[in-house]
Order: sequence, then structure tokens, then C-alpha cells
Amino acid sequence: MNSFGQVFRLTSFGESHGRGIGGVIDGCPAGVEIDLEFIQHELDRRKPGQSKITTQRMESDQVEFLSGIFEGKTQGTPIGFVIWNKDQHSNDYSNLKDVFRPSHADYTYQKKYGSRDHRGGGRSSARETIARVVAGAIAKLLLRQVGISIHAFVYRVGEVELKKSYQELDLSLIDSNIVRCPDAETAERMIARIEEAGRNHDTVGGVIQGVVTGVPVGLGEPVFNKLHADLGHAMLGINAVKGFEYGSGFDGTRLSGSEHNDVFVKTESGIRTKTNHSGGIQGGISNGEDIYFNVAFKPIATLLKEQQTVDKDENETLINPKGRHDPCVLPRAVPIVEAMAALVLADHYLLRKINHL
Amino acid sequence: MNSFGQVFRLTSFGESHGRGIGGVIDGCPAGVEIDLEFIQHELDRRKPGQSKITTQRMESDQVEFLSGIFEGKTQGTPIGFVIWNKDQHSNDYSNLKDVFRPSHADYTYQKKYGSRDHRGGGRSSARETIARVVAGAIAKLLLRQVGISIHAFVYRVGEVELKKSYQELDLSLIDSNIVRCPDAETAERMIARIEEAGRNHDTVGGVIQGVVTGVPVGLGEPVFNKLHADLGHAMLGINAVKGFEYGSGFDGTRLSGSEHNDVFVKTESGIRTKTNHSGGIQGGISNGEDIYFNVAFKPIATLLKEQQTVDKDENETLINPKGRHDPCVLPRAVPIVEAMAALVLADHYLLRKINHL
Amino acid sequence: MNSFGQVFRLTSFGESHGRGIGGVIDGCPAGVEIDLEFIQHELDRRKPGQSKITTQRMESDQVEFLSGIFEGKTQGTPIGFVIWNKDQHSNDYSNLKDVFRPSHADYTYQKKYGSRDHRGGGRSSARETIARVVAGAIAKLLLRQVGISIHAFVYRVGEVELKKSYQELDLSLIDSNIVRCPDAETAERMIARIEEAGRNHDTVGGVIQGVVTGVPVGLGEPVFNKLHADLGHAMLGINAVKGFEYGSGFDGTRLSGSEHNDVFVKTESGIRTKTNHSGGIQGGISNGEDIYFNVAFKPIATLLKEQQTVDKDENETLINPKGRHDPCVLPRAVPIVEAMAALVLADHYLLRKINHL
Amino acid sequence: MNSFGQVFRLTSFGESHGRGIGGVIDGCPAGVEIDLEFIQHELDRRKPGQSKITTQRMESDQVEFLSGIFEGKTQGTPIGFVIWNKDQHSNDYSNLKDVFRPSHADYTYQKKYGSRDHRGGGRSSARETIARVVAGAIAKLLLRQVGISIHAFVYRVGEVELKKSYQELDLSLIDSNIVRCPDAETAERMIARIEEAGRNHDTVGGVIQGVVTGVPVGLGEPVFNKLHADLGHAMLGINAVKGFEYGSGFDGTRLSGSEHNDVFVKTESGIRTKTNHSGGIQGGISNGEDIYFNVAFKPIATLLKEQQTVDKDENETLINPKGRHDPCVLPRAVPIVEAMAALVLADHYLLRKINHL
Repeated sequence: MNSFGQVFRLTSFGESHGRGIGGVIDGCPAGVEIDLEFIQHELDRRKPGQSKITTQRMESDQVEFLSGIFEGKTQGTPIGFVIWNKDQHSNDYSNLKDVFRPSHADYTYQKKYGSRDHRGGGRSSARETIARVVAGAIAKLLLRQVGISIHAFVYRVGEVELKKSYQELDLSLIDSNIVRCPDAETAERMIARIEEAGRNHDTVGGVIQGVVTGVPVGLGEPVFNKLHADLGHAMLGINAVKGFEYGSGFDGTRLSGSEHNDVFVKTESGIRTKTNHSGGIQGGISNGEDIYFNVAFKPIATLLKEQQTVDKDENETLINPKGRHDPCVLPRAVPIVEAMAALVLADHYLLRKINHL
Repeated sequence: MNSFGQVFRLTSFGESHGRGIGGVIDGCPAGVEIDLEFIQHELDRRKPGQSKITTQRMESDQVEFLSGIFEGKTQGTPIGFVIWNKDQHSNDYSNLKDVFRPSHADYTYQKKYGSRDHRGGGRSSARETIARVVAGAIAKLLLRQVGISIHAFVYRVGEVELKKSYQELDLSLIDSNIVRCPDAETAERMIARIEEAGRNHDTVGGVIQGVVTGVPVGLGEPVFNKLHADLGHAMLGINAVKGFEYGSGFDGTRLSGSEHNDVFVKTESGIRTKTNHSGGIQGGISNGEDIYFNVAFKPIATLLKEQQTVDKDENETLINPKGRHDPCVLPRAVPIVEAMAALVLADHYLLRKINHL
Repeated sequence: MNSFGQVFRLTSFGESHGRGIGGVIDGCPAGVEIDLEFIQHELDRRKPGQSKITTQRMESDQVEFLSGIFEGKTQGTPIGFVIWNKDQHSNDYSNLKDVFRPSHADYTYQKKYGSRDHRGGGRSSARETIARVVAGAIAKLLLRQVGISIHAFVYRVGEVELKKSYQELDLSLIDSNIVRCPDAETAERMIARIEEAGRNHDTVGGVIQGVVTGVPVGLGEPVFNKLHADLGHAMLGINAVKGFEYGSGFDGTRLSGSEHNDVFVKTESGIRTKTNHSGGIQGGISNGEDIYFNVAFKPIATLLKEQQTVDKDENETLINPKGRHDPCVLPRAVPIVEAMAALVLADHYLLRKINHL
Repeated sequence: MNSFGQVFRLTSFGESHGRGIGGVIDGCPAGVEIDLEFIQHELDRRKPGQSKITTQRMESDQVEFLSGIFEGKTQGTPIGFVIWNKDQHSNDYSNLKDVFRPSHADYTYQKKYGSRDHRGGGRSSARETIARVVAGAIAKLLLRQVGISIHAFVYRVGEVELKKSYQELDLSLIDSNIVRCPDAETAERMIARIEEAGRNHDTVGGVIQGVVTGVPVGLGEPVFNKLHADLGHAMLGINAVKGFEYGSGFDGTRLSGSEHNDVFVKTESGIRTKTNHSGGIQGGISNGEDIYFNVAFKPIATLLKEQQTVDKDENETLINPKGRHDPCVLPRAVPIVEAMAALVLADHYLLRKINHL
């Protein structure tokens, strides 16, 4: 249950305050060119302390590959890797040993397993997503070799929404600001909104939009592994995610069928659809149009405010965490959304190979 | 890729105009009491022609069990079953052999596999969901034995929305009207909206809400098989679904963390949360509160209107389907949503057994 | 647990005296040409009553395909099928309801599941292998299109052994006699041995040898899905099988390394090995040489003799079965061994496609 | 394809001369008490250089656990671990870069993946089995808590065979000599036989026998995951294994059914069988009797002798390896056989939990 993917498959391990976080990528084909700088760059996009609007907890996350890469290329053998935990102030967490933080996984882990590594969330910590970013970076390198690109950006923070479609944006500008919204004016307002939440010792949620371009026709395995179903599965497995929609999504349910249908047209580049309410996926299979989707993130649960709760012995109590917190997880979640999308696309790119002899 | 579930596992087969639709349920434990009337009742809730607001195509869908049940109980052996196709007017579809219907799977199947059974959508037809309803009915019987109940109802049709929370509703009234909305007044308006779409030879989409009660603490397998991630995967695999959200969902992203957190309280029935923005799932694991979620359905693509498209030889053409159509898929999708939720819950109920020696 | 294969995957269902035996083949690529006569021929090779040395119980096993085949070809969609049970003399078995037959699965099924379909062995009956023969026949058709052939033959019955290597035999003669040994003289002695067992109301075991030719280099997925490990897994899953060896097998363990090593030589047809103790597999991967292996079958447990046993209430008792029995399962097991080998080869043929981008 | 097990699942990674060998154990239940000394002891039983009859290459293999264990117990979360490679004399292998060693995996890996880490066999090296010994040790600790014990010992070296059944032996004496045969007199002759092979710069094969005691009735998942089929799969995945048999095995095929059947008897400890030709497994399910099986190991391919071969450019050439070699792999393979058996038993012990509600 700590594995993701059918043939391009990540198995992840690690707790936030154990020795390290890592994983094994099995099923990566031979011949993918490994660009270590690119992989590190992806990790840097996820790391805490990267800007004034993320947590000031400093983690210098460097991946150490243990296997599967030889002379700069994947070998078709499993790729083991680890990111060592360094900033392990476990003592900071001793006061949380016997108390369940509201809307965290403390209570459910304790009840499910009978015990838990309470330090910093243990296995339930979002620090685990480092493993996904590493695997996703390798998936991106694979996809790059076949012309598929993946982008994600912050689309909404609280009520501050980007009022443009992704076609109106220059996606190369995503990393041009610290909030990772490719529209400078909106980005500024988002940053202000996050800073406000930080000042209030509170948090704010929002939406990330993902866009996949260059997808050939034919990716997706009906009936249960439709491309969008696997994308949704991937996104909903990211910490703090509460919803997923693709193409026209929830709003599209308000249209009539005659408005919503994407009629086919003949173009110089072959058969295309006039509109793309389908979000590049029909019957669970990519149709060659851009894939786009939205991912909803709740405001994360770690607040620097006094809150009511209960302890292990079922007594009511108060907690009042001190220290650093992350007022908005969205900027750092952008590379995680991209990574998970890359894992799904790489998996389905390979699966399509076995649709024919 | 036609299998769903980790240990309680449905493998489905069948095309809309082949011999039949069926499946195998593997991993169902021994000792589940089989109530054949209940299973047939679930199928009847899904079948076409059941009311004036669904397609008038008549299918009398009866399941034939082929194995796995003996003297009224499951045996721990695989349960094979088939629902024969009867209303096979394959000739009705010969005009669709060489043309791609907009927003259907005709084009993507043809490109992916190099050929397709064009009759009535073939494998991509929603008729395949019969297999899920059968398996879901058995999952429901299993869950009933351990006190878990699953309900779904139509929450919105186009713009006609049920303005009540599920707690304010009497869920035993879901089947009291043909649209499957447990609020009589809203149901009437929904029916009118669907009839309007039907008169226009058009279709209308909407939202189904699902509610699971009686869930023990501890269901869900982090990090990739979080309970809500598997629920989302299940729902997004249903034909016409464009989005999934659970608990506070997309709207919850507009709250601040201090508003959104569900504080723990001590009650007579043990530890509970004061609010339930978490939708009964924290860290991917059930916390004992009700699970609730929304599923977005697009207006389905089959219209009785002239539409532009292309044919197999990439020539532009027009289609203008005649006959019967389903103006709104939502009433018949209710049992499918319930079935898929039941499959997920049964799977995780069993998986939890191996968290301990 | 009733599924076999990673990507070319059979899920089987059915009990010997239920409605039927069947299965679903998922992951079969589109474009495999279906030869129904060939498939029926394979079933006929397995069916009881085919000759004087097999059980005289008559089963006319005809497969009915329910999906996945259209206009004579596979469609990439799941292939559902069923073989109806006809000769269901369930009453014959009522005397076995409460007693455990020695060396059958009666006792273990009862204890594992708490109940069992006692009629004719239920799920544990070798009748279930019909589903494997159907799926194996389709795998064989797939393999035929890529030049891979699979043969099996009876190598030893009791002490009557074929004293020739497979290279000395004409494998086209396997079906030229009722025992399926391609050496006429040995076949005669084997038939006599089986008839002797039959006269004694007893059974006799032996060994089947399998040979796979035309295998390209590169099939097999180390480290846990080595080609021979998957072959062994497949064979050991057949009823009554007690052992598996490939290449030099158990005997090869008596050689020294310098005798056993297969040195490489350059030939007109590329790199080959001088000897083939490796049985065509090195490091778990096919090397282009013939694959050959042996499968040990115990004398089956159904005897027409009085035997001591216990009943459900743990009282000692005697059983003394009457009627027809199968003195030697080997002739009918030949197509089953071939079918399982075909499933493994087809699976690995497809898996190899994803070793590279 | 580098994962083993259905629910208790090892994913292994690493090449012999990369950074290290490691793995992830997923699905280990919470609450298994971790005895680090025991785990290290198991590694020491496998390590090279442990006695005069194994390779003198020295590896001090110490496992570093990275996750999943907290306060001395498993947490239900994945257990990541690594064993660092230290004795990496990669240069020793540069002469093997372009040549294919006979009966090694050099040729097949090169052809399958298009490249390979040639150093010391890379991924195909038996050094990979360290990961299995670590995971197997944890499985053994789990099984110990439920009363299941696993033993393996050297049964035959070349022609030197132990002429006793396992019941006549004291299995606590397995490690009392360096060849791991619990009969002192036979052990001496085995050691002499191995020393002879070593002096000849040659190698010798043989057979390891495994015995599992304390198994409850009901382990094994028909029809494809019969307990012995999974054991066979596990054993055949070990480097150099050529065959597997359980219970009466190949020899049992020479008996008649009336000799072979294990009749049931009533004893003070419940229902038992008078004989145990079934090897503790009937219908693929454990029946409570001891499980025993044999595993055939070929003489390993690394010789210190001149041998004919071909190189990468398909030219014939000679190799003449120098240095240290392992004349007989059997003594060190004993803990590997035990480890793989433990993985299978732990997996099935957990799987049985979901046979019932």
C-alpha cells in the first residue's frame, strides 16, 4: 500500500524524523538519461525554507541514489534512493506524544496501528512526498524523451483566484515568483494573502492546476484505470488534498450536453476537437488534446493557535503549538502535483506498449 | 486493468452488444449471506426504462451466478456471474461504424486498439457498470454484516440543487421518487429539469452525494491507498464522472485552517470531532465519523441533435442520431456510486485485518 | 488469488458441480486472431472420456466466449468465457458430504473456509483447469503469431520412462497415441502400465516434459519473476503437481561447474551455447536456446479402494468409492502443462516490451 | 518485478558493486518485535568468508534500517533498509566488461536491456539475496510470535547425500558445522567434497532441504497461489536454483495412489495424517503436518578455469578468471532458503486473515 503505479512503480518509505525518506522505482525502462541537476532542482522546488512564504524550517534535501543508474543512464533495474533526515529536532515533538492534534493523522494512526512514531507526524508527514518528487523527476526525464511535458501552478489561494485559462498564460513563468502562479499580478495578491495568514498564525488553502501537453492518443486503460481515474487517485493521495476535477470538472455539470460535447474537426495536424471540455481524455483514454485538471488543497492543520483536543487517555486538553509553520502549502505542493502526474503518465505510456503485439 | 480492489477484487468483462456483461469477484470472504432479491433490486435501480425520466430502452437485467455461492453463502471461492445482453439491436448501430461520435470513446478506442466493437459503445458503454452493481451488492451485504451502510442520492441536476446537508435529510426516502433525491420538493424540480432536457433532445449533468455511516476507525492504507484516494479512484472510473471531492472539498479550500480544523471532543460514545470537515477521514484513515463525498457527472454525450464530427477516413461529416436517449444519467447512477463505494469499503475493511498479527 | 499473470492475466472461477467453469483474460493485446477450432481442439485434448485409459466420465466441454472478440480478433478488451457443467450428478457425491477423502482438499477447504461445496471436489476439482486450457489456447495463438511454440508430452509413467532426449523425438507425434508420448514403443508400455493401474482400481503418477522453441532472447523479469520461477509457479499450481525442474534440473546438481557451464560459441545464427544445461534461461532471462522442463505428478488420490479416514465430527470411518476413476492423469494433463507454459510466455513476451522506451 | 509477496511484500534493489543493496518491506503488521542481533546473525550466516569452504572475499554486511521500526517494534509502516557495499574492487572486473561469462547472466542482461553494470554481475549477482535475508529475518520474527519455525539444511553435495529423513535429525545442530548439515558424519564428507572442488578450481552443486513446523491448518490461496506453488516460486527465484519439489516430490511419482495417499487418523492432538507424502499441503492449503521440500542448486558458474566464450562484438575468445571463488554455494544458501520460505509463510499467514469476516 506504499506502492504506486502498475508497471512504472514507486514504493516509498520513511518517517519525518527517522533516518531518512526514500523509495524504490521499479519498472523504469533502460536508457532514460539521468540529469542529476534537474532532479535536485525539483527537490529544491519542494523544500521548506525556500522563501518568506513557506515554513522557515530548513531542510537541505539531497537525494542519494543507491542503485539502478550506471554511466548516466537507467539500466532497467530498480532505482533505490534515500534522502537523509537532518533537521531532526525530535525533542520538539515530545509534548505531542500523548495528544492528538486536530485534523492531523495522530488519532487515526494510533487507533489503526496501536502505536505511532509521533515525531513530526511520522509516516503521515508531508515530508514523505520527497520520495514522490524524486520518482516524479525521473518520470519527467522519461517523458521528456518522448515529448510529454507536465506543468502545475497555483490557481487559487483562499479567495484569490487566477482569472485566466492556462492557454492565456506563459507556463515558463511558473517559477518566476515564490508562489508559483504564472501571472505576476495575481501572484502578488496571493503572496499577500499567504503573508496575512502567516501573521494570524493561521493557514490558507486553495487550488493547483495541472496541465499535460504533448500526450499521444491512446494513454489510459479502461475500465478501472482510466487515465483521469489514475490521475485523481494520484492527486488524492497527496497530503491535504480534498478534491480533484479534470476538463470541465464540477462547473461542466451545469452545461447541457450540446454545449459540453467537443465536436471533432479536421485540421492540418489531424483530427482535433473544437473545444476541450473533455480535458484531453475521452472514455478514459487520451485523445491528443491537452490534459488539464484542478486539485483542491485544504488549509493545512498545523496552526500556531490554541485548540481544543483530547489526549491518549481520552481526556480533553488544549494544545498551543509554538515555532515555525507553513501558512500555505500550495507553492511547495506544485512540484508534488507535477511529480504525481508524471508518475501516472509514465506508467500509462509504458502500459500502452502492450495494447498490441 | 479491468480489475478493481486489492483483496476484495472485481474483474469485469463484456461489451454492450456482445453476449453479456459479467465479472469475477475474488477475495470475498466465506460466510457472506447472499440475498438474491436484494441484488436484483440493486440491478433494477440501475436498469434503463425504469421511469419516464430515463431512457425508454428496455433491459431486463438479471444476474446469473456461476460459482462461489453454495447453500446461500459465499464460500471464499471466486464468484463468477453474467448478465446476458438481450436487447441487442446491433443493426441500429451500423451507421455509427465509421463515424466518431463527439465526446464518446469511439475515436480513442479506435486509435488505441486499432479496431473496436462499434455497437452501442462496445466496452466503453455504461452498460458495463452492471457488473459493478452486482459486485457492489455483494460488498453491501458483506458490509451490512459488520454494520456499515452506504447511501447515495442526487444532489444537483444542472442548476437545481438540494440546499440541505445530508444530516437534514431522511436517507430512507432516496428511492421514494424517480430522481432519487430524498427531498420531495427538490426532487420535483429536478424531474422537471430532466424532462425539459429530454424535450430538447439534450442532456443535463449534475452531482451525486455519497454518505457512508457506521465506519469503524482505521480503514485506509496510507500513503497511496488512502481511503479517500481509493474512493476517488473508484468514482472517477464511472462513466461520465468529471470530479470528486470529499468532506469540505473544493469549498473547504476557502476556509482558514482555524475554521477548518475538526477539534476532538470527548463524548459518551468515545472520542469524536466537533465538526466534520474531514469527511470522516484523517491522514487517509477513517476516524469513525460519517464519510461523505460528491461526484460530478457531465451531461452525457448521446444527444438526439445534429452534430459536426469526422469519420474513419478523417473526413468531416454530420451525425444526427434518432431514437431513445437518456436525458440525465444521475438517477440511474446512484446505485453505481453506491456500488463503487461499497467495493472500496469492503476492500479496506478486509485490508485492516492485516494491520496486526 | 484466482488470477495468474502480470499483464496477460487469467482470472478463473467455477466449481466442478456448479453452473460452470470460466474465466476472464485481461491484458490480451488487440489483434490476436482467434481460431475457435484450435481452442476447441485444445479442450478436447483435456476432456475426460477421450480414450480407454482416462476416466469414462463423459464431459463435452465447449467454451462459450462472452466478450473481447469481435470479427475474429481480440479487441484489447477483457475476454470473458464460460464452459457449462453438464454431467452434474451431484447426488453421486452426497455420501462424501461429511467425510474427508484422503489426500484430497476436502479437509483443508473445510477448515480454511468453514464450509465447502463438497460435490466432486468443488473448487479444488481439476475440472477448474478447463479455464486454463482456454486461456492457454489464446496465449498459444498469440505466441504463434510471434513464432514461439510450446509442446509437452508424457515422459514417465510410474517406472516406464522415455529414454530419449526431446531432440531425438518428433514432437509432431505427441498426439499420435492416447498416452501422448511421442515414442510409439514407450507409449505402448505406458498404456499397459496405466491399464494395469486401472484394473487394480489404483492410480499411477509420473512426469511430463515441456519444451518451448522459438523464444527470443530477453524474456524474464529478474529478480523475483525470473522466467523459470514463473514457469515453476505456473506448473506447481496445477492439481497433483509435486515438483518442477528446468534445464539440467536435479540431475545437474551432480555435475561439476566445469561440466555444467554452457560455453558460448559463434554460429551462423548468432551467439549460441554449445550445451544447454541452462535450459534456455540464464539469470532468469531467456537466452534464445530451447527451454525445457519437467513436471512431477503424483498418483492422483481418487481410488476405487477402501480407505481409512475421518468424518466431519472427527470420528474415524472408512470410505469405499465406486464408479469411474482416472487411473493416470498424465495424458490429459499434457494440454494443461502446455496451457500454463503459454500463459507464462505470453505474459513475459508482453512484459519485455516495457524494458525500453 | 523486483517485488515478492502479496501483502507481506519485499521490494529489493541494488547491484553488487553499486552503493548498496537494500529493500522495502511493505505490509508488515504493527507489533512485530525486532531483534537486531537475530537479524545480524542471519546476515552473518549468509556472508562470504565465514569459513574455509566459502569464498574468502570478505564482506562485513551490516543492515541499516531507515524506517518502519520505532521503540523496538514494527509500526505497520514500510521498513526501508540498506546494506552498504564496501568491498568494491570494481577494477577487478574491468576485464569482464566486454566478455560474456559462460552460464552467467552477462549475455542475457546485455541483450535484454542494451547495457549492464558488468561489475561483479551487477543486479544478477547473488549479493542481491542479502535483501531477502533481512526481510526473511523479519518474517521469521513475525512467525516466531505465532509459533511457526523454519529450518533448512544441506541435504546433498554432489553425490554426498544425507541418508536420513529430517525427523531422524536434530535440527538444532544445523549450524554446528560449517556446511550446515545436521549430521556430523555426513557433514565431514560434504566438507571434504567441497574442498576437493575448491582445489580443482571447480564448483559443486547439491540440494537443500527445508522444513516448516508449527503451521496451522489453512495457509495457502488456491487456485494459483497454492502454498507450495508460492514456495516453489520463491525458491526458483534464488540464484542457481534449478528445481523444487515438496513432500514426496519426484520420487513420489513412482508410488501407486494407494501407497501415496495419506489416510486421516484421529489423535489426541486432533485430526492428523498417518503418513505425510503430501508434505503438509493438500489442495494447496496447509493441513497442519510439517511442510518439507527440496531445492536443487546447480554448481555455480564462476570457475577459476580457462573457458571458451564470446565477447560483445561476437568474437570467440577465452576467459581465465583468477582470484577467489566459492566452490559450493550451499552452506551460504541455507539462510536464503529459510528467508524465502519465511516470506511465503508470513504472507500466507496474513492472507488467511481475510478468508473470513
